[in-house]
Amino acid sequence: MHLSEIGEFGLIGRLHHLLGPTSDPDLVQSIGDDAAVYRVGEGRVHVVTTDALLEGFHFDRSFTPLERLGFKAMAVNVSDIAAMNARPRWATVALGLPTTIGVEEVEALYRGMARACERFGVALIGGDTTAAASLTLSVTLIGEAREEDVVYRHGAQPGDLICVTGDLGAAYAGLKLLLDNRDALRRNPAHQPDFSNWQYVLARQLAPTPRLEAVEAWSRAGVRPTALIDISDGLASEVHHLCDASGTGALLYEAALPIDAETRALASRFEEDVDVYALFGGEDYELLFTLPERQFDQLPRGLFVPIGRMTEPEAGVHVQTAETGEHVPLQNAGFNHFARPEGL
Amino acid sequence: MHLSEIGEFGLIGRLHHLLGPTSDPDLVQSIGDDAAVYRVGEGRVHVVTTDALLEGFHFDRSFTPLERLGFKAMAVNVSDIAAMNARPRWATVALGLPTTIGVEEVEALYRGMARACERFGVALIGGDTTAAASLTLSVTLIGEAREEDVVYRHGAQPGDLICVTGDLGAAYAGLKLLLDNRDALRRNPAHQPDFSNWQYVLARQLAPTPRLEAVEAWSRAGVRPTALIDISDGLASEVHHLCDASGTGALLYEAALPIDAETRALASRFEEDVDVYALFGGEDYELLFTLPERQFDQLPRGLFVPIGRMTEPEAGVHVQTAETGEHVPLQNAGFNHFARPEGL
Repeated sequence: MHLSEIGEFGLIGRLHHLLGPTSDPDLVQSIGDDAAVYRVGEGRVHVVTTDALLEGFHFDRSFTPLERLGFKAMAVNVSDIAAMNARPRWATVALGLPTTIGVEEVEALYRGMARACERFGVALIGGDTTAAASLTLSVTLIGEAREEDVVYRHGAQPGDLICVTGDLGAAYAGLKLLLDNRDALRRNPAHQPDFSNWQYVLARQLAPTPRLEAVEAWSRAGVRPTALIDISDGLASEVHHLCDASGTGALLYEAALPIDAETRALASRFEEDVDVYALFGGEDYELLFTLPERQFDQLPRGLFVPIGRMTEPEAGVHVQTAETGEHVPLQNAGFNHFARPEGL
Repeated sequence: MHLSEIGEFGLIGRLHHLLGPTSDPDLVQSIGDDAAVYRVGEGRVHVVTTDALLEGFHFDRSFTPLERLGFKAMAVNVSDIAAMNARPRWATVALGLPTTIGVEEVEALYRGMARACERFGVALIGGDTTAAASLTLSVTLIGEAREEDVVYRHGAQPGDLICVTGDLGAAYAGLKLLLDNRDALRRNPAHQPDFSNWQYVLARQLAPTPRLEAVEAWSRAGVRPTALIDISDGLASEVHHLCDASGTGALLYEAALPIDAETRALASRFEEDVDVYALFGGEDYELLFTLPERQFDQLPRGLFVPIGRMTEPEAGVHVQTAETGEHVPLQNAGFNHFARPEGL
């Protein structure tokens, strides 16, 4: 059987089944959330996640500055820790290096990782470097929380508000711009790109910022979301994950989706629907969470945007369109590593 | 500058320098030992290590059963945890899968990992699966110990006995056999290998067994080695690591090197010096450790073999030959991932 027949999540399901149940009494959450959770004593847990970036699949070295790539490899893992309402502490990295890479390039990668570590309070304490056919970065990140503070994908209730941090679709817009420029360069090697108007979407694609400040804001406000996930594969896919895990439906309001002006301008330039970017574009690394409506007012202004409401499971997952107000089913679609590649 | 100019350890040194010191008060040991060590409270520490196996660099899929490969990916990491005198607990794995691989093959990999996890008391709790150009397995393993029990590469004293577990050179002998058979198949596709006499060396190469029982034996005997490392790159290289970290010299007795009869027979067949296998062949995953001589008698018989003695640093690192008794300098050589590949 070919991998593309069952897809990434189908494979994970089969492997999870194959591993069988774990009887360890210190294990709180195994495979199936943004990170695994195990007890370390005194009411505290550690959460651990691993995410790899592979050349040709997650990035194209021809348009990816290596320092930003190092930063991103760490940042996407920090996002998974934030998605458990935990704080990152310890990281290891397994680097696969093509023999053609220079020492200075490897050092640029490391500078990016070191910058992310400093910014997000992580200590990079171990690693493995090995020769490889193409550049590979596998980061494992261990975070820390009180057991009672951890938030999972399950736990949302019908009626809860659905909220996101920041804005959506910008990372996908940045990728579109970079791929468009790569094509232009292939057609005309003398092509001179002008990125001056697109700094925000490029930064969102090349060096995303995980939303650790949300974890701090919830802590200060004394609010614990009922369910939580980070947006790596696209909003639609993540909403479906929350609904599947929590046993709810959901209704999103198209008009409420937070989209930056630069993202809108770029989608216009490409004559594409910016709501598709916001709903199905991956790699925003914003946090998606639910909470009882009355708690929303306890949160500080600015960072969090309500975009919908959890519903009864039989209602399914829908978007209320901005123009007509009708409820359109929201496809469970997003980036699938084993489907046809999108351009990289 | 090209990676081959500074080598794997040169690169690690530069990257370590670039990361700078970590001020985290809970960090006990960062990069530079078999695993990193951090406090989790109540006098306990966690130790974390990461090791990747890459197709074409660490294994050749044409002669590597995937279930054994999965077992090995976990086993080599368990060995690093044992090399800190700790016990493995939690694992994550990042799998890079070529799009041509079948679901059944991925499941075979996982069965091997699951078998290793069950055998060594590990819970596989997280992972990442992604498409890749070639098969890649990056395992991160977290172990546990009391802080006072952890043993590092440093800590050996002149006069301490140098001991190993098990026997040496067998994994390298197994690799030689597999490469020889691959060459025979390329010359004659109808070649029928007869591996019936070589089951031990093949098992040592394809599915090594980390020496967790040594950790148990030391604990029961109330013995804590003064320095400890696992033998992944070859005995010579690891002895140099212990001497560098501990600030000692060393004298090994060639006559005392434990070598299995099958390893000897295979070296004879290839008309090669079996002591070279034992000293420079990698991937045995035995433990190499030092302790005061009077403590050796407290250890159970059978598992541990004394092979030399730590000396004053100015004496350097030597082998006393079996035939003439002269002291020959021991080269600091072993597998280097960025040097010319040896055959894989």
